[in-house]
Amino acid sequence: MTKKINIAVGQSGGPTTVINSSLYGVVKEAILNHEIIDKVYGMINGIQGFIDGKVVDMEEVLPGEELELLKNTPAAYLGSCRYKLPENQEDEVYEKIFKRFEEFNIGYFIYIGGNDSMDTVDKLSRYAKKINSEVRVIGVPKTIDNDLTLTDHSPGFGSAAKYVATTVRDIVMDANVYDTHSVTIVELMGRHAGWITAASVLARKFENDNPVLIYLPEVAFEVEEFVKRVDAELKVKNNLIICVSEGIKDKDGTFICEYASEAGVDNFGHKMLTGCGKYLENVIKDKLGVKVRSVELNVNQRCKAALASLTDINEAAMAGSYGVKACINGETGKMVAFVRKSNEPYELVCETVDCSLVCNQEKVVPREWISEDGTDIKKEFIDYVMPLIQGEPEKVLENGLPKYCYRK
Amino acid sequence: MTKKINIAVGQSGGPTTVINSSLYGVVKEAILNHEIIDKVYGMINGIQGFIDGKVVDMEEVLPGEELELLKNTPAAYLGSCRYKLPENQEDEVYEKIFKRFEEFNIGYFIYIGGNDSMDTVDKLSRYAKKINSEVRVIGVPKTIDNDLTLTDHSPGFGSAAKYVATTVRDIVMDANVYDTHSVTIVELMGRHAGWITAASVLARKFENDNPVLIYLPEVAFEVEEFVKRVDAELKVKNNLIICVSEGIKDKDGTFICEYASEAGVDNFGHKMLTGCGKYLENVIKDKLGVKVRSVELNVNQRCKAALASLTDINEAAMAGSYGVKACINGETGKMVAFVRKSNEPYELVCETVDCSLVCNQEKVVPREWISEDGTDIKKEFIDYVMPLIQGEPEKVLENGLPKYCYRK
Repeated sequence: MTKKINIAVGQSGGPTTVINSSLYGVVKEAILNHEIIDKVYGMINGIQGFIDGKVVDMEEVLPGEELELLKNTPAAYLGSCRYKLPENQEDEVYEKIFKRFEEFNIGYFIYIGGNDSMDTVDKLSRYAKKINSEVRVIGVPKTIDNDLTLTDHSPGFGSAAKYVATTVRDIVMDANVYDTHSVTIVELMGRHAGWITAASVLARKFENDNPVLIYLPEVAFEVEEFVKRVDAELKVKNNLIICVSEGIKDKDGTFICEYASEAGVDNFGHKMLTGCGKYLENVIKDKLGVKVRSVELNVNQRCKAALASLTDINEAAMAGSYGVKACINGETGKMVAFVRKSNEPYELVCETVDCSLVCNQEKVVPREWISEDGTDIKKEFIDYVMPLIQGEPEKVLENGLPKYCYRK
Repeated sequence: MTKKINIAVGQSGGPTTVINSSLYGVVKEAILNHEIIDKVYGMINGIQGFIDGKVVDMEEVLPGEELELLKNTPAAYLGSCRYKLPENQEDEVYEKIFKRFEEFNIGYFIYIGGNDSMDTVDKLSRYAKKINSEVRVIGVPKTIDNDLTLTDHSPGFGSAAKYVATTVRDIVMDANVYDTHSVTIVELMGRHAGWITAASVLARKFENDNPVLIYLPEVAFEVEEFVKRVDAELKVKNNLIICVSEGIKDKDGTFICEYASEAGVDNFGHKMLTGCGKYLENVIKDKLGVKVRSVELNVNQRCKAALASLTDINEAAMAGSYGVKACINGETGKMVAFVRKSNEPYELVCETVDCSLVCNQEKVVPREWISEDGTDIKKEFIDYVMPLIQGEPEKVLENGLPKYCYRK
């Protein structure tokens, strides 16, 4: 009988609504394989905390049924980090990390994160090969931005999409109550890819319904053209809702939000950093003199657990679990990826792809999924996103508020 | 047998998550009294639309089971208005309104709204008396701000409080993932009264947990003192969440958000109107050099139906229903008010109070429910608000998104 090894799992990058569900999947699968895997170590604050030896025994901190709460707890239970490993594999940090692997008898390491984390997986697996270490490293994708390549979509996106669709609908309802002209600009997350903003199209219920205009970073934004378009829409509609990605930019690649900071100066003489929504609010107010407000959905897009998609939660757990299986099967340097077998009925399976092909790449919304004039989203996207927002998580409440699990 | 009369119901002022539930209560109770009441007319865009003769027959537009959807539909189904009746009762608008009452054979009029709507109820009932009209006018309270007097609380507040408590908790979770210093300022609604902001205290789960500081408009705000306090808190805590009412003001009564607009100028040379959260973000960045962000929860506080309080939904319906009963009992010029009979178990009954005593008054958070230094909320408030956020509405979904009812 071979000696049992331990598994380490870490969370990295910005939190999502379901990154803890992937953690759940990893822990659950590891427990199912106790004949091979002994302890399940959670890295506190990702690889950065691990370098300092900060780990917890997952079965000790979340025994039995307590583990289940992870599935409904937003943000990163283990804490996160933003840490990029050096290109130079001679750097002493690699030696430090592999010493820790040895110290904790780690045979498998699962890293849940986005682009940078896949870079970490790639570098560590290459280093392992170099030093003939048997440690296997697998990445589990996580990003609300949905910009990871070589996977149909990423865990975290479905819940963000569902939150945006629901919330933009509520804002449409709110804006419609008065019988006067008004413009509401909703600024949504997505610095380089418009996936989240595209989901606002799901808030539309009728023909010509709001949101009437949707702008993604994938298409160059022209302020003049925008003003003309809003003016025209106001001639046929009382209340306009317009959704914009935070990352919309002009044909020269300048972010629209940078226009604002060029001129706005605060009490201290510092540039006022506002979003493109606020900037466009001021433009419309100035040029069209209509009542206008801007709303930023902000961090709620990545942490509103009560409005998460059950499909997303389950798929996040599935990806975590598949990551452990991949390790057991001898894989390393790979990311778990989703393959959509069919859309109706929706059927998804996991595979693994080379991390080196994923990291430092970016998947944007295909141009052909956006209307020619760049102000609307086409059916292809709706068909793509619809299965990802289905289902409601079971609500676990305590005194009328969501019950989460916490690291003591 | 006396001739049957019709009832008219209107919605006014800013929308809330449960104003449609009050409308539901009115319609349901009117239907139960069909031996007295014939038709139930809904005014489109409040009294303003009614002057133009815009009404719908509620049983025609929402027949049978369709009416039930109103309970989960945010914003004002009938549309709203901001319209203040003139003081001068000789003004021709009064004659116009009462002509419409006659035209539609209205015997009872229920107006669901806040302070201004209660002013309308008061004026119309006085005018009725003056011209010997038998039309009875009753107000049903509605405000997320909870600032109406002579009632324990107002429908709309419980859901806003629940939304704020849930969402601030999620933001706390999100902020805690990194092991570095950061400050998050959450700006909440409440221009003159701090009820909504006070509810953020419910997001706190442990001793010394976030939100660490809570500022209401009821206590004068000093920027210098605030900076000192944040600096001190950062010495003992990594990530700070601070909740502020949009309406916090200094000892001279100047709103803190006005500080920003004094200096900030945009590309067009216009004042940049930003909230106090954004202003304080810049102050902290400037004085303490720490990572800081501000988040505005904005209109979601009044329209997030999926996170509404079931208690609030039910009480809103009860208030609507009680308004109809009050009309039947011969009352006029009154507002439906809540009396809390007991807190444990929570028991609430309705009564009516004179609208003339309600309108143009404002109920603020009692000073003794706020800590001496004005940065925290005391147990008295928690005991008060806790029953109001209990219970979850049944979710009615369509394609993974909330199903609402719409006026065609």
